[in-house]
Amino acid sequence: MKQIEGGITAPKGFLAAGVEAGIKYENRKDMAMIYSEAPCVVAGTFTSNKVKAAPVKWDMELVEKSPFVQAVIVNTGIANAGTGEEGMQICRESAKEAGRLLNLPETAVLVGSTGVIGAQLPMDKIKAGIAKLAEKKAAGKEAGTDASIAIMTTDTVNKEIAVTVEIAGVTVTIGGMSKGSGMIHPNMCTMLGYVTTDAVIDKETLTGLVKNDVLSTYNMISVDGDTSTNDTLLVMANGLAGNAPIKQGTPEYEAFKEALHFVNETQAKRLAADGEGAMALIETTVFHAKDIETARTLAKSVISSSLTKAAIFGHDSNWGRILCALGYAGVDFDPDHCAIYYGNEAGKGAALQGDFSAGMLIYEDGIGSAYSEEEATKLLSEETVYIWVDIKSGKETATAWGCDLTYDYVKINADYRS
Amino acid sequence: MKQIEGGITAPKGFLAAGVEAGIKYENRKDMAMIYSEAPCVVAGTFTSNKVKAAPVKWDMELVEKSPFVQAVIVNTGIANAGTGEEGMQICRESAKEAGRLLNLPETAVLVGSTGVIGAQLPMDKIKAGIAKLAEKKAAGKEAGTDASIAIMTTDTVNKEIAVTVEIAGVTVTIGGMSKGSGMIHPNMCTMLGYVTTDAVIDKETLTGLVKNDVLSTYNMISVDGDTSTNDTLLVMANGLAGNAPIKQGTPEYEAFKEALHFVNETQAKRLAADGEGAMALIETTVFHAKDIETARTLAKSVISSSLTKAAIFGHDSNWGRILCALGYAGVDFDPDHCAIYYGNEAGKGAALQGDFSAGMLIYEDGIGSAYSEEEATKLLSEETVYIWVDIKSGKETATAWGCDLTYDYVKINADYRS
Repeated sequence: MKQIEGGITAPKGFLAAGVEAGIKYENRKDMAMIYSEAPCVVAGTFTSNKVKAAPVKWDMELVEKSPFVQAVIVNTGIANAGTGEEGMQICRESAKEAGRLLNLPETAVLVGSTGVIGAQLPMDKIKAGIAKLAEKKAAGKEAGTDASIAIMTTDTVNKEIAVTVEIAGVTVTIGGMSKGSGMIHPNMCTMLGYVTTDAVIDKETLTGLVKNDVLSTYNMISVDGDTSTNDTLLVMANGLAGNAPIKQGTPEYEAFKEALHFVNETQAKRLAADGEGAMALIETTVFHAKDIETARTLAKSVISSSLTKAAIFGHDSNWGRILCALGYAGVDFDPDHCAIYYGNEAGKGAALQGDFSAGMLIYEDGIGSAYSEEEATKLLSEETVYIWVDIKSGKETATAWGCDLTYDYVKINADYRS
Repeated sequence: MKQIEGGITAPKGFLAAGVEAGIKYENRKDMAMIYSEAPCVVAGTFTSNKVKAAPVKWDMELVEKSPFVQAVIVNTGIANAGTGEEGMQICRESAKEAGRLLNLPETAVLVGSTGVIGAQLPMDKIKAGIAKLAEKKAAGKEAGTDASIAIMTTDTVNKEIAVTVEIAGVTVTIGGMSKGSGMIHPNMCTMLGYVTTDAVIDKETLTGLVKNDVLSTYNMISVDGDTSTNDTLLVMANGLAGNAPIKQGTPEYEAFKEALHFVNETQAKRLAADGEGAMALIETTVFHAKDIETARTLAKSVISSSLTKAAIFGHDSNWGRILCALGYAGVDFDPDHCAIYYGNEAGKGAALQGDFSAGMLIYEDGIGSAYSEEEATKLLSEETVYIWVDIKSGKETATAWGCDLTYDYVKINADYRS
């Protein structure tokens, strides 16, 4: 597997565009299109929120029933959630209009929205935006970046990625773009994530891969504990790489899986690091859990704790808050038989092998350890803060990613609509 | 039932004191004592956190096994959590020392701590503090207030309460003091709450009342979603009022229950209103749920949502965040068959009867309603913001209390230890 330049347009046959449609804000790109020259199989995961935005409902139906998809239209500014039957009608009309211009059935056009809940999308601006997108769509890196920038809201960083992987002698490419900065506590997937690939892979195999991979990637991040109404991850494969079909239980499957996981994990970490107002990425790994669910729940509880997040913003080694967050996670572990360390990137490999000597021990078996506050403050002032928790009760490991809680998170969200 | 002046010393036979012991901060009261002239039955509820502070473990054992209790010693500054066997030893020694000075067995002395996790309590200062407390303990309002002030940490308001209730011609008094401002998301009880009463009531009846009442009071508040390692509620009854014993199924039981509930609910609301950095109390009531658990879960999800809390700090009617928080609560309800209102104190009674006309409708049955943004901003700028949710599927109602998320919450928690 090799990381390369580019994003969703890196795989063969994928075009894209990003344009200014003036839906909510002036002078910024706010509509994006992904278009594939060949029909795609698609896998998707969506928010577990009971309140599902209209585009989520539209996409869920297409992912389940449509024989193929070939385009995605995304807008920012308005989420098209809490919009009733009119909201569904807007999805249908958007897909129909894009289909008309792209010569596709409406059931081949996925839609996505993010922004304020409750407002209706202005259909005239959406239609004008679709026309611009259809005209402007192009191959190449620049077009992909245009689309990726157009789906940003409070994001401060454009989040694109592309990798290649050899599948039985054929180069397959995977590209991705994601957005998400607030209302990030995905449950089944991330805010908005789009992954393209030219791999030849059938829908069932792709779906299995995606549903499994979100559990250790997008589902393991949190910015603020709020699970959005619009969370959507779509993975589209158009088959233009011409590889032999990828089948489960083969080395090619494992290679593709690894590449897809790299794309998803990288994007998930970027979402956490670019959380609203964030100054630091918090990476918490729980080692030696008796099952994967326990490891994941504990890791996620730490990165979701407001008090831990605020302490890290203050570079304050208030590790009692980490211990406390483990304690209220609601799963079984023994606080008198576990250890907490501040870790680092270099020592992760050894830690995975059970050697924590590269970490700074701060708590073990019921009691705090003697450590240098000065050294701890230094580690807590890095761009990424690593927390290792060894619960000494099994073989499973899980990692979760979050961000610190800052004044800017409050500022951004106190006047988001204005 | 009648609210009166005073706090924990209002019931007959309860003395108290608050002194400066210099445990962590200079020039502030940081140790408190409650002492009863007669032995008390006691009921308690404690944190559900897997990590339980040493004083929680000590009190749990006493509440379960001790034939009677007669004193409580509380310190702030250090939580005595994550302190291993040494922490337990400190509890035992504290109880023993207080028992020696008060002429009580150590098993009659409850202890409580709140503050930073992980540090050991300085036993010399604790002992000196206990000596001062034992000497200074007194009856009367002032002594009760001294104790109540001594248990404050980041609290900005002293939280005392007292009520009287007639039990078959005899006046029974209930008093309370509580502290808690951060790490507030109680699960079985509040941060630190102490309730005294001179009622004659047996332990089993009192325990049943308390365990049931916390479900609709302390367990329905949240400041930051972090469930503390030290949450403790203790209710002590010394029987000095001389009423006929309170028995379940009698009008006297109902009267006492109502009075106790008023004390607990008032204190719980005060904890939420004085949440770290809080500018506003958020009261969310869910009406017409099919069961009480559904109502409670939905109400608590709204007041726990960081995004809703930040929007209310900004006086921004971003009601999609309320709907979103209902949606991810993890319980069954139909977003296309429910209504959200901004409410008010005056209209609560009618709302409980199913008449929501006093509220401002903002969302109903899948779609936002036309309302005045100006009026909404006004309601969201009040000291208490009322959110009413009618989920139209049953007869149960529940209320939860939280507070807005402000810059000061971040400030307080980014450098709590320094």
